[in-house]
Amino acid sequence: METLKNDLLLRAAKGEKTERTPVWVMRQAGRILPEYRAVREKAKNFVEFVKNPELAAEVTIQPVDILGVDAAIIFSDILVIPEAMGLPYEMLEKRGPLFPKTVHTISDLSSLHVSNSPDYQYVLDAIKLAKRDLNNRVPLIGFAGAPWTIFAYMTEGSGSKTFSIARSLLYNSPEFSHQLLQLITDSTINYLKDQVMAGVNIVQIFDSWAGILSPAHYKEFAIPYIKQICEAITTVPVIVFPKGAFFALNEFKDFPCQVVGLDWNMDPVWSRNQLGPAKVLQGNLDPALLYSSFDNIKSETKKMLNLFGNTNHIANLGHGVYPDIQADKVKCFIDTIKEHQRVTM
Amino acid sequence: METLKNDLLLRAAKGEKTERTPVWVMRQAGRILPEYRAVREKAKNFVEFVKNPELAAEVTIQPVDILGVDAAIIFSDILVIPEAMGLPYEMLEKRGPLFPKTVHTISDLSSLHVSNSPDYQYVLDAIKLAKRDLNNRVPLIGFAGAPWTIFAYMTEGSGSKTFSIARSLLYNSPEFSHQLLQLITDSTINYLKDQVMAGVNIVQIFDSWAGILSPAHYKEFAIPYIKQICEAITTVPVIVFPKGAFFALNEFKDFPCQVVGLDWNMDPVWSRNQLGPAKVLQGNLDPALLYSSFDNIKSETKKMLNLFGNTNHIANLGHGVYPDIQADKVKCFIDTIKEHQRVTM
Repeated sequence: METLKNDLLLRAAKGEKTERTPVWVMRQAGRILPEYRAVREKAKNFVEFVKNPELAAEVTIQPVDILGVDAAIIFSDILVIPEAMGLPYEMLEKRGPLFPKTVHTISDLSSLHVSNSPDYQYVLDAIKLAKRDLNNRVPLIGFAGAPWTIFAYMTEGSGSKTFSIARSLLYNSPEFSHQLLQLITDSTINYLKDQVMAGVNIVQIFDSWAGILSPAHYKEFAIPYIKQICEAITTVPVIVFPKGAFFALNEFKDFPCQVVGLDWNMDPVWSRNQLGPAKVLQGNLDPALLYSSFDNIKSETKKMLNLFGNTNHIANLGHGVYPDIQADKVKCFIDTIKEHQRVTM
Repeated sequence: METLKNDLLLRAAKGEKTERTPVWVMRQAGRILPEYRAVREKAKNFVEFVKNPELAAEVTIQPVDILGVDAAIIFSDILVIPEAMGLPYEMLEKRGPLFPKTVHTISDLSSLHVSNSPDYQYVLDAIKLAKRDLNNRVPLIGFAGAPWTIFAYMTEGSGSKTFSIARSLLYNSPEFSHQLLQLITDSTINYLKDQVMAGVNIVQIFDSWAGILSPAHYKEFAIPYIKQICEAITTVPVIVFPKGAFFALNEFKDFPCQVVGLDWNMDPVWSRNQLGPAKVLQGNLDPALLYSSFDNIKSETKKMLNLFGNTNHIANLGHGVYPDIQADKVKCFIDTIKEHQRVTM
């Protein structure tokens, strides 16, 4: 049984009172760090980078050393799962992900399979290396995309402002949609269980495209599959980040996850009302604030901490950190949280 | 004094009971119609198209004849105003708008001016031609972008997933931001007043990028400027469409506009609670539903009408119609609304 030197994140995720609010940053292992960019250059492209356990583990650790965050998050991509299921992707510079083949019909599904550890062994290897190098300093976060978000990429084939292909399938091919969502869900359950076996201490489910669905579609095509995943992951806390799904936030009130991530435009007090007193909230500073002055960052971060209150909160941005933000601005955000000792304890 | 043959939209916008719910469709004058695409080919590029009053008037009328909507909306673009102020734009195929020059500092503002009718005379000419050709059949809608959305393009220089340049200016250069927003507001007031003088019967303010601001920023940098515009336009009803600003919807409850437009993921009942019983709501069918079968479109449209109830509603999509939607699907949506006679009246 491992004993973490800093287990603030895990205790906070379980709803325990902690001596201060823990903090990590979405996309902390990324282009904001010159040290990341140096490692990134060793791989010939993004997909190869993700598939290289040594390099992935190396950049996973960097923000712990450089930024002083309370957790590492394994460097990887949510599109590992479609590839593990049989649908490979590329990552184009400045344009984002591209799937040369997509799936649209029930017969297309025969080319896919429920993924298992051999399909994503490189992620498990990266987790083991990262755990070894973290040496119990802080917890390691595992993650996966939510089924709807993965479905959106597998059917649309790339990022999109409207995801109109993906959304039209929900209307026109509900049977296909549910079958594909179930395949993704089963794959994701295997994947997250294997991540836990490999050593992650907590997992986050990113529903990056939650916000473009109608409330009715989100209820039918997103919620039930996230729920299956949460119910299957019983040994570590689960964070769900339903990006943009303000209209469904109250659905997560009695949901089998410990933590709900919030966008920067979800008011903390409003969110608390939606989610009730027991849920742990994660977020949600406007990532654009980190373009601002150090003084501004400090005062707005303190304001945010006061709005969330002293318990049931994990500090983070309301979205991934923008890649052109200066690392010392991110550090200022993190340090402000770490220095904001709880006067009430 | 003109007498419109069909003034349903205007009466509904003023909160009067009407014999049925009026309907129009955002982007109805656009690529969904083969007749539009034929006219579009006569101009050498999009900006020239917008600047040609004859062509603009022609496509403005098309959806009235072809789709049977209860209103025409003048064919134009929200980026007319930045150009009229001294900042020209281009429209790139598939990539959207591009500003070769942007503004970031108070000294940059000296190259701009508050726009007046000579700067956008071509829009006023198009309105006059459209009014002549509409021949009082239905009202003509004028429009402009909301100051924050126009600010976002003028500072960012193009569309963006994050508008991080625009948003960082709000944090780092609030004085510049307020000055530019005021210039845009003054220009937009002139513009909309001139549109009314030229003949439009109602105006819509599109705040397309409302949803990416934090609630605090929306309150400081968006709301006060939209309010100034609404207070200045006293002779025709005003529709405000604060796209994505679920967090600020209640700000529009006692706002000096008659109508509030809703995204497709804002539940009608929730929205009514936010906005109170008196406000007229516009929207909000999921535009992706129009990829679906005729039967689906009919049943979902009826469901929507029932959720909004019989009064204080203008039917529309929750966003602009997607350009690859078949015109007869749009017509099915419109016909369903027109056939849904009010049993209670």
